[in-house]
Amino acid sequence: MKITGFTCWLVETEPGPQFFWRRGLAGSHGDVAPGTRPRKAVIRMDTDAGIHGAMELVRGASAIDLIARRYHALIGENPLMTERLWKLIWEIDRVEEIHMRSLGILDVLCWDVKSKAANLPVYQLLGGNDPKVPAYASTVTWPTLDDYERHIKLCMDVGFTAFKLHAWGDVKRDIELSAALRKWTGPDADLMFDGSAGWDYVDALKVGVALQDLGFSWYEEPMREFHLGSYAKLCEKLTIPVLAAETSDGVHWNMASWIEAGALDMTRVSAFYKGGFTGAMKIAHMSESFGMRAQVHGMSLENAQLCAAISNNDYYEQLVVDERQIRNLTSLGPLAIEDGYLNVSSEPGVGYNYDWAGLDRSACAKVEVTRRHNN
Amino acid sequence: MKITGFTCWLVETEPGPQFFWRRGLAGSHGDVAPGTRPRKAVIRMDTDAGIHGAMELVRGASAIDLIARRYHALIGENPLMTERLWKLIWEIDRVEEIHMRSLGILDVLCWDVKSKAANLPVYQLLGGNDPKVPAYASTVTWPTLDDYERHIKLCMDVGFTAFKLHAWGDVKRDIELSAALRKWTGPDADLMFDGSAGWDYVDALKVGVALQDLGFSWYEEPMREFHLGSYAKLCEKLTIPVLAAETSDGVHWNMASWIEAGALDMTRVSAFYKGGFTGAMKIAHMSESFGMRAQVHGMSLENAQLCAAISNNDYYEQLVVDERQIRNLTSLGPLAIEDGYLNVSSEPGVGYNYDWAGLDRSACAKVEVTRRHNN
Repeated sequence: MKITGFTCWLVETEPGPQFFWRRGLAGSHGDVAPGTRPRKAVIRMDTDAGIHGAMELVRGASAIDLIARRYHALIGENPLMTERLWKLIWEIDRVEEIHMRSLGILDVLCWDVKSKAANLPVYQLLGGNDPKVPAYASTVTWPTLDDYERHIKLCMDVGFTAFKLHAWGDVKRDIELSAALRKWTGPDADLMFDGSAGWDYVDALKVGVALQDLGFSWYEEPMREFHLGSYAKLCEKLTIPVLAAETSDGVHWNMASWIEAGALDMTRVSAFYKGGFTGAMKIAHMSESFGMRAQVHGMSLENAQLCAAISNNDYYEQLVVDERQIRNLTSLGPLAIEDGYLNVSSEPGVGYNYDWAGLDRSACAKVEVTRRHNN
Repeated sequence: MKITGFTCWLVETEPGPQFFWRRGLAGSHGDVAPGTRPRKAVIRMDTDAGIHGAMELVRGASAIDLIARRYHALIGENPLMTERLWKLIWEIDRVEEIHMRSLGILDVLCWDVKSKAANLPVYQLLGGNDPKVPAYASTVTWPTLDDYERHIKLCMDVGFTAFKLHAWGDVKRDIELSAALRKWTGPDADLMFDGSAGWDYVDALKVGVALQDLGFSWYEEPMREFHLGSYAKLCEKLTIPVLAAETSDGVHWNMASWIEAGALDMTRVSAFYKGGFTGAMKIAHMSESFGMRAQVHGMSLENAQLCAAISNNDYYEQLVVDERQIRNLTSLGPLAIEDGYLNVSSEPGVGYNYDWAGLDRSACAKVEVTRRHNN
């Protein structure tokens, strides 16, 4: 099989419900000026076998710029040879410095094709553990304790038994909120805390001690994920598992450095920050080899497949935003959450389907790459 | 002083002379399809004091997309408060994952303004060591040994006494080339080798042993710069200084991890991969504190100022491409190389000057950001 071309559409989307993160960080609409709309990239890869791969990603302009300039070099390659192609992407990365979000585009497209060609779900090609995955309710940052209580109780009503806080980034208030969450959910609920890199080691330790006293299950990214020594100190001091390396560059090589430094107790994997399925699987397997869980980060069709593929992940992460969105979680099609579980699709392919002619009509821009050149 | 707005122009440029890197990597024109031209971004920041900052960067589309979506949040900030602004950029990075090349845009613009406001050169604001900086001839990858010999001898004729190889990525041939370079340049020439991340530890060690026997001054980036353990082993085995961490993400925090891991003997700094002047200076000072030189990477007006600012750097890096380009190195204005030296400009400002009305006429796209919003 051979790759014959790539087509990209830059598409305006409806902004979802607005929400916020901790103090200092922009919220969900922080890069959407009044009167404008977010733009995603829809990407299609064609092959000479008549099978195509498809995927999409947010903030699409830079991904399309990358594909327009660099992906010509992949025309003619066999899309089923994902290991070889993953290495070729790293060679492009060496001269281009590919944005973390774009590193896995080719890999996702190829696994989509491979899954369709094999007529087997992606998660079974990658491994295959269990398509029924418990989901945790991952909060946004609401203004008050009462807001958290109301939303958490609604999440319990719709079936969630595990919860992760994105809090305010204020040591004292965040500890109060964590204690309140334990009270609302009872002693058996699985609770997690995500610091969104708001602190340095000193404040991170204070919050970590409080969380382990409250019996939380993991403590995620309290600091920026670049200085391993700060994380190693934290791991040494705390008994609560420290989860990290969601946002650091370098996929499995970088993760090996974290493990070697004793800088985390659980690793973070995702298809979108770790070079697609191939990078995520390398991290998942290495983590297991070192006795660690590889907790899958974030939503998406790709990460759902990843959750069903591997055995050392606990949950699928489901962001909970507001009452209406929480009540509609059962209506998300292949990503619906029912009674606290995601039932991962066993259809072949990653699951992105588009009306291609409709995209041609509605896109702000379209780019096609069909010819390799030797410049 | 307050930032009042940003203006970006996407501008087509003439491709420079074509050249190549080691096997596996795309060459200089690898992302320039026949019939197209490279596009750079020219960026201007205005202030209420009537002073503007300006800079440019290659592959400009994604930088402009970033500024169009995110830089509104910086309107109204004081451009002289570069430490505060650098922290704000990291907060944007946490939700955006800013491309490494774009991380320092705001910082360079602000130091340009600060330098003009103070009527002092940037390098004196940053520190100030010596504006006369020895340059080394940093080769591209030529096809044959004879090609290298011819170009190296021409470099010696025009005054270079220090040379760095970008070779073929072939262990045996690269060692032969390194031995030949020593022969051509004599026992006293300062020689360096850049592996452009072509090898794993096993091959990297073989080449390193050969280079130290030939008396090379540093051994740069033989492997991808993500797994610190491989570099730590290499440093332990070799007496030739290992230079690394040019391309790894996380600026000073990441560099602290490299130092802590014993994974390099010299650090790599630049304005364009390390978050502008502020990030580069943090790395330079930390390196000195740990007894290390911080070797400045790459060309540009920014990196010239950096070379003149700090005391623990040896050279300015000058790429040498072909005979015509080498003979014209004296004609590069503020970046001219004369008798093997760069005389860094002592004019206030980084040194980017444009015909703004001309840009308005010739640009493929123009974006203006003048209003902060609270979305």
